[in-house]
Order: sequence, then structure tokens, then C-alpha cells
Amino acid sequence: MHLLEQRIRREAVVKKGNILKVDSFLNHQIDPALLDAIGREFYRLFADADITKIVTIEASGIGVAVMAARYFGVPVVFAKKEKTAQLDDGVYSARIHSFTHDNDYTAVISKQYLSSDDAVLVIDDFLANGEAIRGLRSIIEAAGAKLAGIGIVIEKGFQCGGDALRAEGVRLESLATIDSMDDETGEIIFR
Amino acid sequence: MHLLEQRIRREAVVKKGNILKVDSFLNHQIDPALLDAIGREFYRLFADADITKIVTIEASGIGVAVMAARYFGVPVVFAKKEKTAQLDDGVYSARIHSFTHDNDYTAVISKQYLSSDDAVLVIDDFLANGEAIRGLRSIIEAAGAKLAGIGIVIEKGFQCGGDALRAEGVRLESLATIDSMDDETGEIIFR
Repeated sequence: MHLLEQRIRREAVVKKGNILKVDSFLNHQIDPALLDAIGREFYRLFADADITKIVTIEASGIGVAVMAARYFGVPVVFAKKEKTAQLDDGVYSARIHSFTHDNDYTAVISKQYLSSDDAVLVIDDFLANGEAIRGLRSIIEAAGAKLAGIGIVIEKGFQCGGDALRAEGVRLESLATIDSMDDETGEIIFR
Repeated sequence: MHLLEQRIRREAVVKKGNILKVDSFLNHQIDPALLDAIGREFYRLFADADITKIVTIEASGIGVAVMAARYFGVPVVFAKKEKTAQLDDGVYSARIHSFTHDNDYTAVISKQYLSSDDAVLVIDDFLANGEAIRGLRSIIEAAGAKLAGIGIVIEKGFQCGGDALRAEGVRLESLATIDSMDDETGEIIFR
């Protein structure tokens, strides 16, 4: 998506440890016009997939998911992050390791909001190792729902998450895929 | 806002300890059509206020804020919640007590995204004691920005937060204000 790549080139900051900061338009400050265009693009890519629900994870996935949901006309369910493992039998949960923050958390979705009738589009802002996405996938499977697709705003193509999921046959679309980035020069190369 | 009150009456669950669960359309599952109507209503209420930025706090304020931002055509900045106090001089921060979770956290906004040129509309999903709103207000004041208004989806009118802010001259609009609710009968009375 050209508009997004332009914006990343202009405003993103590459930091040590494969960190890309997009705080000026996505992860702290949010540009609603860009988010709207992103939502419309996800709809274009997955309009044929008979999506009944969009699933994301708090916090920075919510804005993108809600904007996309307007186009699909379906509800969003956002997984909540809990520090401790959940023993509540009213929820589906998955333990997830965050490489960014080097900690573990539990993603939780109430059983009320996912069922075997659902065809789910998972939306998230970033995909790197794919830990969060795999957690959400296991929750969707536990609910007996269908994972109809995954829509990612920025994929770090030099990490394994996206390619591994595609190799497993998952329908995954990333709006911008970064093949390499350099924290000394700030250079970003897109796929 | 009639559409919102109807939805609360139909789907909200009143729990012990003055807790109102609106997980089916606002705080866990999100109805994008309702959120769009809420965003439009905030625009109607504050269209004259020359808003330059919408400020909210993660996580459940983000969806509402982004939908409102589409109508205003201005960016959203969402404060991040940190467990520990911030000593970073690149940010504005405020320590906030959460009565719901009975803990303290620090709300943080980068200095890059708020300035003395901003007229800010604060948007949040709930207002009870007003602790979170007061924290955001102190951040806005620290930035030298103007607090142009506060837009709340659901105000717990039987708690003091909203009335105290109005008494201080703050322009505050709540789309649904609850005067009382009963966790035994489930009855909800709107102002």
C-alpha cells in the first residue's frame, strides 16, 4: 500500500533491536484518514471471505480493527491482555511471549463473543515473530471458529512470523512488508 | 443519546460495586455502527470548539476516539498506561488511581504530540470518579494546551466525577448519564 509505505519512509524511526517506531501516525498518535484508508484496503483484500467478526488485541490493534469493521459491517472483538494466566472457564485464553517487551501475558476472549459460526479476520498493527497472531489463532480454534484471514499493517519480513504462517496455508495480507532496515542510516527497504 | 441508552438498557449488565458491564458493544466486543454514531454525536456537540487534537487513554477509549476523529479530521493521541512512574523527560505523565481495579498507574503522552497550539477534546468510554480525566487534564495543562472539552460515552452520574468537573467550569458532555442502577433487579435509571 503506497500511501502507507510513503508514511513509514517519512516518519518511522528505526531503533536498535529491530524496533520500528511509528508513534506519529499509528502507535501513539493516530491519523484517522490513514487508518480509514487502511480499513478500506483490508476490506478490498478480504471482501470475498464472508467475514463475520474481526478479532484483534489491545491496545494498538483496536483503532485499525474498528476502522476496518466499518467497511465489513461486522463487530470487533479485542482480546484483553492479562498478566496472569486465566483459569476462568467463561473465556478462551492463550499465553503469549512478547519479544518486544521480553515478557509473557495471557490474551483473553470471552466465550460469549466467538462461536463456531464465525469466520474471523484477525487484524493487527505489526507482525514480527507472529507470537500474538498464533495466540489469537489458538483462541479462534478453541472456539471452533474459522480463521478466514489475517490482515497486518506492517510486517517485518526479515523475521519469520509471516512466512511461517503462509507456509501453513494461512491467508495473510500485509499492507507494508519490510525486508530490511538499518538503525544507523535509518534506511528501510520494502519487499 | 437515545440509541445508546436503548443499547445499555438491552445489553448492559449491572454488577456489585457499581460496575456496569458493556462488553457486548463497547468494552470487549465493539459495534462499529454504534461507535460511528457516537463519533458523529461528539462532532455535533463540539463542532464549534475548533478542536485540533483528540486525547484518550488506552485501551477502550481508542475505538471511540478514532471514530470521532474521522468527523473532526484531527489526530488522536492515546495516553499509554505504565505500571511504574515515568522519569523520562520526553514525556508528560500523571499518576492515576483506578477504583475499578484498585491500583495505580501512570498515564504517559510524548511531548512530541501535544503543544500549546492544541485545543484538545478528551474522549473516554466511562466517567465515574473522574480520576483518569483529571490525570489527562494535568497532562494537557503541562503541555500548555487548551482543554476545549470532554466527551464521555457513559457517565455514572451517581459518582462525583462529572458534576465536580462541571462545577469547575469544564465543558463536559456525556452521551448517557446513569443516575442510579441496581445490581439485584438490573434496573438502570438515566438522568
